[in-house]
Amino acid sequence: MKPLYEKPPRGVKGRLGRPGEYPYTRGIYPAMYSEGRLWTMRQYAGFGSAEATNARFRYLIGQGVSGLSVAFDLPTQLGYDPDHLLARGEVGRVGVSVATLDDMRSLFAEIPLDQVTTSMTINAPAMMLLALYLLVAEDQGVALNRLGGTVQNDILKEYIARGTYIYPPRPSMRLTTDLFAFCAKRVPLWNTISVSGYHIREAGSTAVQEIAFTLANAMAYVRAAVAAGLEVDTFAPRISFFFACHNRILEEVAKFRAARRMWARIMRDTFGASSPKSLMLRFHTQTGGSTLTARQPHNNVVRTAYQALAAVLGGTQSLHTNALDEALGLPTEESARIALRTQQILAYETGVPEAIDPLAGSYYLEHLTDELENEASRLLEQVEANGGSVKAIESGFIQEEIEASAYRHQQEVENEDRVVVGVNRFQHEGDPPIPVQVINTEIRERRVGQLRAHREARDGAGVNSCLEDLAAASLGTENLFPVVLEAFRVGATVGEVCGVLRREWGEHS
Amino acid sequence: MKPLYEKPPRGVKGRLGRPGEYPYTRGIYPAMYSEGRLWTMRQYAGFGSAEATNARFRYLIGQGVSGLSVAFDLPTQLGYDPDHLLARGEVGRVGVSVATLDDMRSLFAEIPLDQVTTSMTINAPAMMLLALYLLVAEDQGVALNRLGGTVQNDILKEYIARGTYIYPPRPSMRLTTDLFAFCAKRVPLWNTISVSGYHIREAGSTAVQEIAFTLANAMAYVRAAVAAGLEVDTFAPRISFFFACHNRILEEVAKFRAARRMWARIMRDTFGASSPKSLMLRFHTQTGGSTLTARQPHNNVVRTAYQALAAVLGGTQSLHTNALDEALGLPTEESARIALRTQQILAYETGVPEAIDPLAGSYYLEHLTDELENEASRLLEQVEANGGSVKAIESGFIQEEIEASAYRHQQEVENEDRVVVGVNRFQHEGDPPIPVQVINTEIRERRVGQLRAHREARDGAGVNSCLEDLAAASLGTENLFPVVLEAFRVGATVGEVCGVLRREWGEHS
Repeated sequence: MKPLYEKPPRGVKGRLGRPGEYPYTRGIYPAMYSEGRLWTMRQYAGFGSAEATNARFRYLIGQGVSGLSVAFDLPTQLGYDPDHLLARGEVGRVGVSVATLDDMRSLFAEIPLDQVTTSMTINAPAMMLLALYLLVAEDQGVALNRLGGTVQNDILKEYIARGTYIYPPRPSMRLTTDLFAFCAKRVPLWNTISVSGYHIREAGSTAVQEIAFTLANAMAYVRAAVAAGLEVDTFAPRISFFFACHNRILEEVAKFRAARRMWARIMRDTFGASSPKSLMLRFHTQTGGSTLTARQPHNNVVRTAYQALAAVLGGTQSLHTNALDEALGLPTEESARIALRTQQILAYETGVPEAIDPLAGSYYLEHLTDELENEASRLLEQVEANGGSVKAIESGFIQEEIEASAYRHQQEVENEDRVVVGVNRFQHEGDPPIPVQVINTEIRERRVGQLRAHREARDGAGVNSCLEDLAAASLGTENLFPVVLEAFRVGATVGEVCGVLRREWGEHS
Repeated sequence: MKPLYEKPPRGVKGRLGRPGEYPYTRGIYPAMYSEGRLWTMRQYAGFGSAEATNARFRYLIGQGVSGLSVAFDLPTQLGYDPDHLLARGEVGRVGVSVATLDDMRSLFAEIPLDQVTTSMTINAPAMMLLALYLLVAEDQGVALNRLGGTVQNDILKEYIARGTYIYPPRPSMRLTTDLFAFCAKRVPLWNTISVSGYHIREAGSTAVQEIAFTLANAMAYVRAAVAAGLEVDTFAPRISFFFACHNRILEEVAKFRAARRMWARIMRDTFGASSPKSLMLRFHTQTGGSTLTARQPHNNVVRTAYQALAAVLGGTQSLHTNALDEALGLPTEESARIALRTQQILAYETGVPEAIDPLAGSYYLEHLTDELENEASRLLEQVEANGGSVKAIESGFIQEEIEASAYRHQQEVENEDRVVVGVNRFQHEGDPPIPVQVINTEIRERRVGQLRAHREARDGAGVNSCLEDLAAASLGTENLFPVVLEAFRVGATVGEVCGVLRREWGEHS
């Protein structure tokens, strides 16, 4: 981009539209945040046991978060129970360990599910964890059609970047579309997927790649669901997105606006969607974990503040702000509180929410929006021309493109062409140490004990029968969601349910 | 302001101009920061002895500040030596104590004055402290015509808001214009005044009042200098400004742009200035001290980050970012470093400096700029219609207007119509204490001893003779600057020089 712009790009007015109207460049709601309806402040949290995470959730609610967001530990994300050999050393480490309905009950104890919305970062076993959540809602007497929240359920980006896949792509896509179909009927307010650019960006992509590959993945899900017989306007309104927000403030604002415009056009023109809700790109934002530094951790408060601002100027629906100790460990209560306060200051002190898409019309920003849209569209067309994102993942194209960007970025940092304050410039010796969240390392033993007791107390024959039903169903075409629900209702564990499908479908490697 | 804007205000293109061209809405330089010429990172510092402050200056230079900014203690600001009765308890408390040429030498020991620019927050005795600085430059062999820096030298806002005046307004204005005239000839790169909206805003004014009263004061200085026989284009290029930057990000960006446009028009049309430099509003920004809270002090890092961004989006020439412990005491090395890192992250990681006036053309921002300009122009016209700012200060009009705003603001906070995060909402018990900078309370005794030794060692008769010359000159019309310089050269103290003028001119109360 050149530094000086003195007039709006040609035809920009036609490409903007009004807020809440096609092509949604200026935001998906007519009033955006201006009538007191702020974005959802949704802080990702989870560590150790369900009880420890429940305490953190209730702490965060007391501090003013408006939505919950569950981090699961790696064994849970990979569909292993805590007593599995591969779980050793990882139980409760990067998130909460959940294997049974009792665990899910403990996780949401004293949290009425009709009064919060919950986002769950869970992909390969998204159906399983959502099933447990629905059973807790049932316990609490909350009707499923009043439940709000999101499962990430975006397996394609796991193959690209994040790595917590279990099954090969094709059966994985079936789990995704079965979940779409089940929720469309039974849990209509649930966001059935959160198509995630976040991990693509964190893996080192550019903003342009983040848009293009995320929308390519989203198109793959839409195609899969349509191929499974779903009518586009029945499921598309519950597709949501998840983007990163990095440091380059105005580029990030432009990114969100460009992505909205592109998705609206894709849904209308490529998929023939007609419900306005199908055309609206709704998204969660997380500030950029990879932009934060272990050195001089208080600098991260500044970075996160700028990133949060960009997300809000870009019209995000919900936001997680990273804690200053992100690069060191899990957030402490204090660091989590400062992160939340960042959102509250932005919301209540800066005046930014009072205007709708306040940067609209800015010569520079509109040029930037157009440029990102043009570049991302070119890249997306390239993916589409070669058969779509599933093929582009299988061929390694997407991964290679991201790696090349990550490499360029790393070179720039090493050559000091790109300054990282406190790292390759403005270093400083003797940072005072900051407190770090400590995870109880004995948790695995305790979890193994709980699980043994659970298995002894349940109706083993009933569980086995349900698991056999699941195995049979996995080879047919019926929707697996009700079968999974039933298995958990009688006491199956996440590891057992996932294990059945592992045996039937094999594993991706 | 309404929340939605869909087109630029009428005629905006004509009111913008190009960057570096009249009316400078888009900034005073054609390239602004885009060619690597960033704003000056100028962190205000000073406490205790000249030696202690010198150590902090050198620390800050090592951390990457690009300009110095001296905080003087109250006795120095009021023209009292540290052994004066009224100085008791205040020596070295809110700034550094400087009474003699030796003190000034210690303050800048090992800091080559041709390689830094220095700003001095000094008003009633601005001429005296600048004289000492020039003598240090002379010592260092630095030619005066290569010296860069600023003295605040804005006495009118002292009567309005800040309170560190000494003399009545009329002789004070003579000191100001004598300094203008001397520097125009001898120290041509020195900014002879920093007309300060900062303290007006901190006293509780609105953004509109900050613009209007600051420009009204600036007009009074221009009038006084013209009345003293100076040609406008000889001194106006060295008039600089000093604004606050508070939390409402976009309003603050608009404020800076509106102020630039108004000043250019005033200088051209009211004062007939023709040098482009006379028309350019150059300004320093300090983030808003009064917006920071003693509770949850880490929240202040967030506020300061947003304010710094607004200052840069508004085209500031230099910037002080407040430390997170601003509401608790003087900054520690650590808090001062985080404040500076905030500017460095903004400069090197956000990409914001790469575009010139990046928000230009934004429908909302341009409306806001016009609105602030219109409202501030109306208020300024009201002051002018009643005889200008000196009269409006004498009548109490300006002070009352600011007080009314401060009262409204306070009411809003008390009624919770205005949220202050951590104070009237999102409170939290049990903030961990943060370290606070401790001032050595024995400094006064040491300073009194130093001063006694200084008085014993100097040529007492020579000093007395110079002070008599000054007394005589103060009743005439010759420029006082050379007389003051001479007095310091032979060993007079700040208290003695100011005391002579106190006796001749009386004190303001």
